Amino acid sequence: MGSNQEASMAPKAIRCKAAICRNAGEPLVIEEIEVDPPKTWEVRIKILCTSLCHSDVTLWKRKLGPVSAFPRIFGHEAAGVVESVGDHVEEVKEGDLVLPVFAPSCGECRDCRSTKSNICSKFGVDSGLIGMPRDGTSRFRDMKGDVLHHFLGVSSFTEYTVVDVAHVVKLSLDIPVDKACLLSCGISTGVGAAWKVAGVEEGSTVAIFGLGAVGLAVAEGARLLGASKIIGVDLNPEKFEIGKKFGLTDFINPSTCGEKSVSQIIKEMTDGGADYCFECIGLASLMAEATRSSREGWGKTVILGLEMHGSPLSLNPYEMLRGRSVSGALIGGLKPKSDIQLLAKRYIDKELNLEEFITHEVSFKDINKAFDLLLQGKSLRCMIWMDK
Amino acid sequence: MGSNQEASMAPKAIRCKAAICRNAGEPLVIEEIEVDPPKTWEVRIKILCTSLCHSDVTLWKRKLGPVSAFPRIFGHEAAGVVESVGDHVEEVKEGDLVLPVFAPSCGECRDCRSTKSNICSKFGVDSGLIGMPRDGTSRFRDMKGDVLHHFLGVSSFTEYTVVDVAHVVKLSLDIPVDKACLLSCGISTGVGAAWKVAGVEEGSTVAIFGLGAVGLAVAEGARLLGASKIIGVDLNPEKFEIGKKFGLTDFINPSTCGEKSVSQIIKEMTDGGADYCFECIGLASLMAEATRSSREGWGKTVILGLEMHGSPLSLNPYEMLRGRSVSGALIGGLKPKSDIQLLAKRYIDKELNLEEFITHEVSFKDINKAFDLLLQGKSLRCMIWMDK
Repeated sequence: MGSNQEASMAPKAIRCKAAICRNAGEPLVIEEIEVDPPKTWEVRIKILCTSLCHSDVTLWKRKLGPVSAFPRIFGHEAAGVVESVGDHVEEVKEGDLVLPVFAPSCGECRDCRSTKSNICSKFGVDSGLIGMPRDGTSRFRDMKGDVLHHFLGVSSFTEYTVVDVAHVVKLSLDIPVDKACLLSCGISTGVGAAWKVAGVEEGSTVAIFGLGAVGLAVAEGARLLGASKIIGVDLNPEKFEIGKKFGLTDFINPSTCGEKSVSQIIKEMTDGGADYCFECIGLASLMAEATRSSREGWGKTVILGLEMHGSPLSLNPYEMLRGRSVSGALIGGLKPKSDIQLLAKRYIDKELNLEEFITHEVSFKDINKAFDLLLQGKSLRCMIWMDK
Repeated sequence: MGSNQEASMAPKAIRCKAAICRNAGEPLVIEEIEVDPPKTWEVRIKILCTSLCHSDVTLWKRKLGPVSAFPRIFGHEAAGVVESVGDHVEEVKEGDLVLPVFAPSCGECRDCRSTKSNICSKFGVDSGLIGMPRDGTSRFRDMKGDVLHHFLGVSSFTEYTVVDVAHVVKLSLDIPVDKACLLSCGISTGVGAAWKVAGVEEGSTVAIFGLGAVGLAVAEGARLLGASKIIGVDLNPEKFEIGKKFGLTDFINPSTCGEKSVSQIIKEMTDGGADYCFECIGLASLMAEATRSSREGWGKTVILGLEMHGSPLSLNPYEMLRGRSVSGALIGGLKPKSDIQLLAKRYIDKELNLEEFITHEVSFKDINKAFDLLLQGKSLRCMIWMDK
């Protein structure tokens, strides 16, 4: 075949709709964009549904600093179908159901080969990354031809996106796409933290600070692992009823604790402190309170929230010395390419509750409603459907 | 037998010499004291040798606060022989070689029954405790009849002491008493931290902040566990040569690092950060630097030092989120009653180097020299012999 014919068979740029953030904190604007074909090691995905995670909101709000860059296409929790692949991509093919994930796996670095790490040291996780991980360039342009920045290697608030194959998880199971979408970030983070980071045990006690989707997913994970007492801490009293669906057994509203601190109450409820504590909001003060709530001797605190104000985490070294530990993890310590599939299996086997996390659904054109619902604390996950 | 005769057979108070601290920071004074007989659950021990640990010095210096109480008999690292036992004591008998240890084990509480904890929740570890753990009273009086306070449930700077059986470790092996003495606190703390808290693995990288006896014991533990790179950090350049005896492979003197931070240098030496970092001094700033020196993905930092200035430990939550963890432990996470025996076995099998920790020896009357040597950083352990 001649080179002209080859060129005509190669994937072309796709014109589609995307929700663009032009300036920090402003409503997204649905615009037509052009999405380049996937280059070597890249996958172009048709997004089927996407949802909004707190990290999107945190970075969407941020006006300054190295991670702030506009115009940008946010979104990193999504499910889609492979539209086309670049050279060297053999892991997935056109038509595969995939999750684009913010946590890459090259499969070859020391971290990817280790069972102890889920942070690929070849690609890393960089919220300041504004292009593709290998060459730093963008695959998105607006109709003026101006570059639109990527977000976390995913950028799912668009009908089509391009991600590196390192950021792609293939799902071979027959799982509904919206449930699959949940597993690409928030729910995996919570369930994974209980499972992989803390290693919650049968009969153990758990305290969860912040009952958003991640916190409730921790509860769900702890329930699956047989925890006997799962205490939720949240300022919204409605969260107790909601949390019961995910295994919550007890609830503390910090605004009605009177003289007592939350950690005092947790210590009283658990005969000395919870075995496992989780911070799921992103406030350094709560991370410290969670640590104080953990049991002397073996209490383990897991930090999942992205600290909102850049505050340091201040711990009491004497409390630490008495057998406590504090760990942090991204995406619940899961290795996305293998572990998400295991969670999908637990859903299919009717063990893992995913349905209850989807509290709202909107069509893509109404994506700003998803922001409003999350900011108002009304939604756990609002599923954003691209084709509705 | 009549009650008079019974009374005469019961153990009596012993008059002996003790090194008393009359006021914070002042040299100890050797005086005659009276040591009461052991009450129920108590053991009176003839101390054979004792050594000085940094926690003695920290508390000896402290003029104020809840843990400050004088006159007091310090000392919590020792080996001795059981002289007599109170009612209900069946674990040891007259003539047994024992180590009095600051970390008690009741054997029955949730912590003692768990493999995860070494902090007995019945008795706890309380540096403010000035008497016996069960009734709070003292077994020591000076010649004026005034009460002398206990320290950490041990008080070994006396020819005879009384400790609760929960604080007694029986050694059934034929190990020299001075080597056994080392295992009652400092060396067990370091070796245990590498073994039980960190779980150092074959081929792993280790960074140790502070090369006193505890830090060097971490090196020795890491060497036994097969670490491939053991980096010591200390302001005293002589510590590199000393450390090599305990497996140290690399050395950083923070005063000669120039523009670079210690954590930067460790990251360069270990291709991204040490697998396991240990803080063995007791400075919150070093605990934070140790954490920064640990590897993203799985880096684990262990805090062993008792913070000297009451400063909080300030960590970067973003660094924690990337798969790092920080743990604290007393006596290296060891369960004294079972684990110290295992370390003694490693010594007898010529695997664990204990000899090199004893850099000086003095007779009891010269106990203040042991303080001088430790304060001047000249000794690792100065063995204080009671009968010399």
